[in-house]
Amino acid sequence: MYSEVKNTSNANEGQFLTTLLFSVNDRVGILDECLTAIRNLNISLTRIESRPSRDLGWDYDFFVDFSADDEQLSAAIKSLKEITKQVKVISSGGSQGVSMPWFPRRKYDLDTFADKVLEMGEELDADHPGALDPVYRARRAEITRLAKTHRHGYPIPKVKYTEQEIETWGTVFRSLKKLFSTHACREHQLVFPLLEKNCGYSENNIPQLEDVSKFLKDYTGFTLRPVMGLLTSRDFLNGLAFRVFHSTQYIRHHSKPHYTPEPDVCHELLGHVPLFCDPDFADFSQEIGLASLGASDNDIEKLSTIYWFTVEFGLCRQGNDIRAYGAGLLSSFGELEYSLTDKPEKRPFDPHKTSEQKYIVTEYQPIYFVAESFKDAQQKVRDFSNTLDRPFSVRYNPYTESIEVLDTQEKILRYAQNIKNDMVTLVDGLERL
Amino acid sequence: MYSEVKNTSNANEGQFLTTLLFSVNDRVGILDECLTAIRNLNISLTRIESRPSRDLGWDYDFFVDFSADDEQLSAAIKSLKEITKQVKVISSGGSQGVSMPWFPRRKYDLDTFADKVLEMGEELDADHPGALDPVYRARRAEITRLAKTHRHGYPIPKVKYTEQEIETWGTVFRSLKKLFSTHACREHQLVFPLLEKNCGYSENNIPQLEDVSKFLKDYTGFTLRPVMGLLTSRDFLNGLAFRVFHSTQYIRHHSKPHYTPEPDVCHELLGHVPLFCDPDFADFSQEIGLASLGASDNDIEKLSTIYWFTVEFGLCRQGNDIRAYGAGLLSSFGELEYSLTDKPEKRPFDPHKTSEQKYIVTEYQPIYFVAESFKDAQQKVRDFSNTLDRPFSVRYNPYTESIEVLDTQEKILRYAQNIKNDMVTLVDGLERL
Amino acid sequence: MYSEVKNTSNANEGQFLTTLLFSVNDRVGILDECLTAIRNLNISLTRIESRPSRDLGWDYDFFVDFSADDEQLSAAIKSLKEITKQVKVISSGGSQGVSMPWFPRRKYDLDTFADKVLEMGEELDADHPGALDPVYRARRAEITRLAKTHRHGYPIPKVKYTEQEIETWGTVFRSLKKLFSTHACREHQLVFPLLEKNCGYSENNIPQLEDVSKFLKDYTGFTLRPVMGLLTSRDFLNGLAFRVFHSTQYIRHHSKPHYTPEPDVCHELLGHVPLFCDPDFADFSQEIGLASLGASDNDIEKLSTIYWFTVEFGLCRQGNDIRAYGAGLLSSFGELEYSLTDKPEKRPFDPHKTSEQKYIVTEYQPIYFVAESFKDAQQKVRDFSNTLDRPFSVRYNPYTESIEVLDTQEKILRYAQNIKNDMVTLVDGLERL
Amino acid sequence: MYSEVKNTSNANEGQFLTTLLFSVNDRVGILDECLTAIRNLNISLTRIESRPSRDLGWDYDFFVDFSADDEQLSAAIKSLKEITKQVKVISSGGSQGVSMPWFPRRKYDLDTFADKVLEMGEELDADHPGALDPVYRARRAEITRLAKTHRHGYPIPKVKYTEQEIETWGTVFRSLKKLFSTHACREHQLVFPLLEKNCGYSENNIPQLEDVSKFLKDYTGFTLRPVMGLLTSRDFLNGLAFRVFHSTQYIRHHSKPHYTPEPDVCHELLGHVPLFCDPDFADFSQEIGLASLGASDNDIEKLSTIYWFTVEFGLCRQGNDIRAYGAGLLSSFGELEYSLTDKPEKRPFDPHKTSEQKYIVTEYQPIYFVAESFKDAQQKVRDFSNTLDRPFSVRYNPYTESIEVLDTQEKILRYAQNIKNDMVTLVDGLERL
Repeated sequence: MYSEVKNTSNANEGQFLTTLLFSVNDRVGILDECLTAIRNLNISLTRIESRPSRDLGWDYDFFVDFSADDEQLSAAIKSLKEITKQVKVISSGGSQGVSMPWFPRRKYDLDTFADKVLEMGEELDADHPGALDPVYRARRAEITRLAKTHRHGYPIPKVKYTEQEIETWGTVFRSLKKLFSTHACREHQLVFPLLEKNCGYSENNIPQLEDVSKFLKDYTGFTLRPVMGLLTSRDFLNGLAFRVFHSTQYIRHHSKPHYTPEPDVCHELLGHVPLFCDPDFADFSQEIGLASLGASDNDIEKLSTIYWFTVEFGLCRQGNDIRAYGAGLLSSFGELEYSLTDKPEKRPFDPHKTSEQKYIVTEYQPIYFVAESFKDAQQKVRDFSNTLDRPFSVRYNPYTESIEVLDTQEKILRYAQNIKNDMVTLVDGLERL
Repeated sequence: MYSEVKNTSNANEGQFLTTLLFSVNDRVGILDECLTAIRNLNISLTRIESRPSRDLGWDYDFFVDFSADDEQLSAAIKSLKEITKQVKVISSGGSQGVSMPWFPRRKYDLDTFADKVLEMGEELDADHPGALDPVYRARRAEITRLAKTHRHGYPIPKVKYTEQEIETWGTVFRSLKKLFSTHACREHQLVFPLLEKNCGYSENNIPQLEDVSKFLKDYTGFTLRPVMGLLTSRDFLNGLAFRVFHSTQYIRHHSKPHYTPEPDVCHELLGHVPLFCDPDFADFSQEIGLASLGASDNDIEKLSTIYWFTVEFGLCRQGNDIRAYGAGLLSSFGELEYSLTDKPEKRPFDPHKTSEQKYIVTEYQPIYFVAESFKDAQQKVRDFSNTLDRPFSVRYNPYTESIEVLDTQEKILRYAQNIKNDMVTLVDGLERL
Repeated sequence: MYSEVKNTSNANEGQFLTTLLFSVNDRVGILDECLTAIRNLNISLTRIESRPSRDLGWDYDFFVDFSADDEQLSAAIKSLKEITKQVKVISSGGSQGVSMPWFPRRKYDLDTFADKVLEMGEELDADHPGALDPVYRARRAEITRLAKTHRHGYPIPKVKYTEQEIETWGTVFRSLKKLFSTHACREHQLVFPLLEKNCGYSENNIPQLEDVSKFLKDYTGFTLRPVMGLLTSRDFLNGLAFRVFHSTQYIRHHSKPHYTPEPDVCHELLGHVPLFCDPDFADFSQEIGLASLGASDNDIEKLSTIYWFTVEFGLCRQGNDIRAYGAGLLSSFGELEYSLTDKPEKRPFDPHKTSEQKYIVTEYQPIYFVAESFKDAQQKVRDFSNTLDRPFSVRYNPYTESIEVLDTQEKILRYAQNIKNDMVTLVDGLERL
Repeated sequence: MYSEVKNTSNANEGQFLTTLLFSVNDRVGILDECLTAIRNLNISLTRIESRPSRDLGWDYDFFVDFSADDEQLSAAIKSLKEITKQVKVISSGGSQGVSMPWFPRRKYDLDTFADKVLEMGEELDADHPGALDPVYRARRAEITRLAKTHRHGYPIPKVKYTEQEIETWGTVFRSLKKLFSTHACREHQLVFPLLEKNCGYSENNIPQLEDVSKFLKDYTGFTLRPVMGLLTSRDFLNGLAFRVFHSTQYIRHHSKPHYTPEPDVCHELLGHVPLFCDPDFADFSQEIGLASLGASDNDIEKLSTIYWFTVEFGLCRQGNDIRAYGAGLLSSFGELEYSLTDKPEKRPFDPHKTSEQKYIVTEYQPIYFVAESFKDAQQKVRDFSNTLDRPFSVRYNPYTESIEVLDTQEKILRYAQNIKNDMVTLVDGLERL
């Protein structure tokens, strides 16, 4: 058993991510001036965006994202102020009183997470069955390097798994598959055969993330993104806001096919993936993600606790039965059986209470939370999010794959127009039903 | 001058595209049985989709798209009926009384257009300045082959343009750029310098479609897709429903830099692209596209006439002035100047009237239609579409990049839930404003 | 035949209605001060409203409506400015550059129309069959006096009709009833028997407005209000915004039971009332009313032309047939028959064109407009209204029976919250369907 | 101190209210037949409604409400089945397995509550200070008779209060008014002076319910309805769904001006009325009412507990302070002071917890619940209501003053169309802001 998500600071030695906005008026050479100024900042830029301003008084807006320490940030602001009066710190991971922690605005901003992991591939914890196996560690490092260099917009590299790896997978696959028909929720059961037919799920083959990701995209718009290992809770949850699930690509140590202290490809593919095919579950997961954007550390803690007790260890009611939908259960032969017995306590899912529940990552859970349905759970998480103390609202624009902070009347208006148009289409559809 | 869109049948010798739906109940081996049955149909399948059924009585739905003639279609239906009673012709290009013409449901269905063009690259019309130039024709064919083999999800191949080609581009670029500040609409003017900074627009360089497409995606979610030449109106407009703009990649003949009887890369990049960066214009264009899905031939005719007088030759009011936003104007030095003089007649844009207006493709237009704003034009096209005689409603789901026909209560409900969630987010945003 | 609505100025000798808003901060005696100031204005107040201010900087808002000439208005403003800086002319019938003509804000503001009619009861036009009958004129005056003194919130006085009057009604009733089954629209046909059962419709009894009004209220929320005679178009249409239909209570002259140059109780009860029982027709009528609030004289002209060709003389498609729904037709034996023959021209209802169509009030119409359905007509009038040049938006609040101008963020927000709550209820209903 | 709302059965000796629906097709004499059949049922009808059917297969729907016992109900159904096959028990207070308890559908259905009170005016509890005063009891009975005979749509009868009564009122008025500026919430404070100016609130005058009701109607659409005494919780809460507040009209015994074991006119006018002027509080109160329609006895218990701790004894946060908004506090000199001291416990308002809290009605409350704002409280009650186990959704139609159960696609569609139209108006308003 392992902790999928942990909450630690993502600061690297005093550096933190910041988003700056500055706006300029159109005049000869102004764009050149701005780009030169930015390049001269001598800081590591992760995004530059320019667009016609949505603010009446200005012609162009620039958004720049960069990693910097306090001093560099001050210098950057000063240097930009020589060009224009309109310079704003939009969000920043720094601690000096900026209310909105930095968060990714565009799907490709997730590239900044690529080499940020809590536990590096090369140095495994002592309790990892492969910790002392140099061959395993080398192989694991080889695969995590693929994730490290992967970038948004490119196909996920395929891994040619070894026979030993396929055998480990096969052992896990066979034992779990036997339990699914009696222990997995209906959404998992219905989709599993489709994954077998379309994505190469079988005891003799480890499916490729790229194939699975494309399949998911068609169903719910979720995509997979390879990751080196455990991300911080904040980064991991932020990804869900974009319907991106960070997935490991390596496999557990062959010596203990039924145990792993960290997520691996068995956990992702057998536990998580089938659920992300369900539209309600996808909505639910994105809802957690959206709530995590720019949230306080305290709220990230709550949200990742909710994530733990749902996406990882959730049970749900299905008619008169209770079934598992959490990936931590669906990928663990032992805990899957245990969870539906009378031994653990079962409580109704209520984000207010669930988010406060302590949990351990090294043993079977003594308490599980039971959702009425994914839609119900989504609604509850939504209501819960509204009670969190975040001073702004966000929406995800799936066309541009970007997050929009609803902080101007112009953005609100555009959003309202979209809703109006949707409403017209809905009524049109209802009329023809 | 040229006709961007023409309306002709897309049938190939009695074959037509059809979408079939069949549903089955879960039992051992059923998925295998279905896939085998489909493969045995001996017809050219362009899509197979299976998913947990959204219909209460069934467990799985299969959607298959294929090209077939009447006889093959009957045989396919008969063979599937041996497996299940639930077999439906969803839409079909055939003429035997099916009410809904075939249309693409997923963005990658546009791959079926890849080798369907009205006029082939190798045989140019007599009035084409390159018609008798074998070198030009070979080069043109070389570039169109890139489009023919391009598939959804892959980067658009880059073309290494020759010096002669760049020179032609440069001539067009220089002459048009001079006019933009006085003749182009504000949306075009503001975005043009950003294209210069970010996408390599300059007199010495022909931008690559791939770079431009990525840029567009960030702004409005529009993307470019290379095309061999003119598509039918239906295919071309259908693409807009997915925010996909089919763009040529070759360039006009060097002998006549200010003339081309067909779209080319100057027309696309200088005329169309800047406008697709504007959110309202993007909405407007997609609206036309959505209206075209499954529309009757007669309505396609009307919609392509509207397209002609807006996206190609539209003028718009800007304060007290009138400016050009149509790509046919913005890429033609002569007609751009002419269009804003007193010579042509100018009428207010009204889809009901505009859609009935005859036009010629070989001369400057005697009549232009003036839009109040893109948002206003979008609303008018929306109201106009509702008067078209289409017996179903569609929505575009940008997460799954697919078209949904709103024909069941379950789809309506899911849509209503989305709108409700959007409404909650909107009110949250308004409350914080 | 007669003109239900005419468009003339409602100014009485230089006086016009004005709505003033002023706001004050809370301090000892301030309310007394304000009320005294208002009373001292020496002008005829028709409404005083005070409420906690919805503007952050002030504690109380006062709305006062009064009739005054230019000089009095200036004096009033001056005198109020001695109390507070926040004094605004909200709307005014005066001509000195105020953009928004006065309009009723509350249902009881319609009381101000009570004694405003274009043609007084005592002096009938020469072409009126009762013009030279002093007994008829006295009786007519007796009944119109009831309307003159009627006020909002009180029951409509019942009239004890004479035998002669009932006979006239009976003649009209019998002849029209014969035609209804073949010439009236289905909505009229279905409701008519209910009016017979519930409201005393019969050849031997003239129904009482009060009974009919209560019946209507239960169906669609429309109510009747007695009126002395013809109102100006503006006043009459403004009433519809509140779902109030101004209805005459007297009856035509007994000498010509099939003719009347003005509306009478036969016209109202047999022609108008059945249609106001239909929810779509009620929505349609209110839509015209809402568009008329504060509209320019020119737009009032257009809206009353639309009213003429729909509510008075409209035809509608019903399956393969065309039927009458206009009250001018349904209460005229001759024109009802004529209208469905081939003699008159029939055009599709299109507010843009219909609103420009000239008409005569003294003969059968040469042109009729045919609506597809009331819902369709409502949508078209809505779209048409949006093209009218009115610089503000209004909504009707049926709880407080008042019109709200959506001119502050606070009102928009409250409205958006209502819509959100409605949307939640709708989705809840859809989920249970 | 007293219990405003108690939850007891409203059955009278085996009789209960039932709503029947039956539908018929149009044929000669059918309406007569139906009405005769209904009259022959020999049961006490409280409502008959007929309307064109909203069901495609039928022409007319009839709704009848009546009080009957099981046997009579069976007989009625049998007799109607001789006319038509379509007879449905919509809701019934009977216990034999009908899932939906009867509830009022139209505002005038509240007339059925007029003579239903838990404790009759003539027989006062022993602890009532007037229990042994025959003059007081006669006077009280005289006033409650006014309520008993009052019917919807008529003005509330005015009471000429005696000097002794006015003196009692004056004593209460003076002592409470002193506390309002420091203890009442801002909404109460701002509106109170307006009630003094407009509705005759003063130490020398007891305001008339009719005047106050009209004033409220203008503000929020709430109206008062005179009542004989305590209603059952179900009836009382049901009234709130229509924005109707049942108000006593008599006054407490003069011997103890600061005490009354039952609601009286001091409690209603000084405690409740000012709050019902606030739009958010009005929404909040109606929300509780809507949730109570057709709710189970168990849920009525929860809702009336919520009512108790909010509308009667609620505190709210106002900036850094806590203030009272509950009418039980605002009309009790002693408890108002006590409630804001440190003696009682204060907990955040959370319907899930509040609804489970036990309370006593004879002493000061040991626990109060503090709302963040009325809007927040409304949202929470809304979310809470959705967790109640009611198998249908309702909306209130303020135009027809009726409750609609959203149980057919036609009703859902009409509702969706309304929301769409509202959304169009909202966007129009936003665009002009």
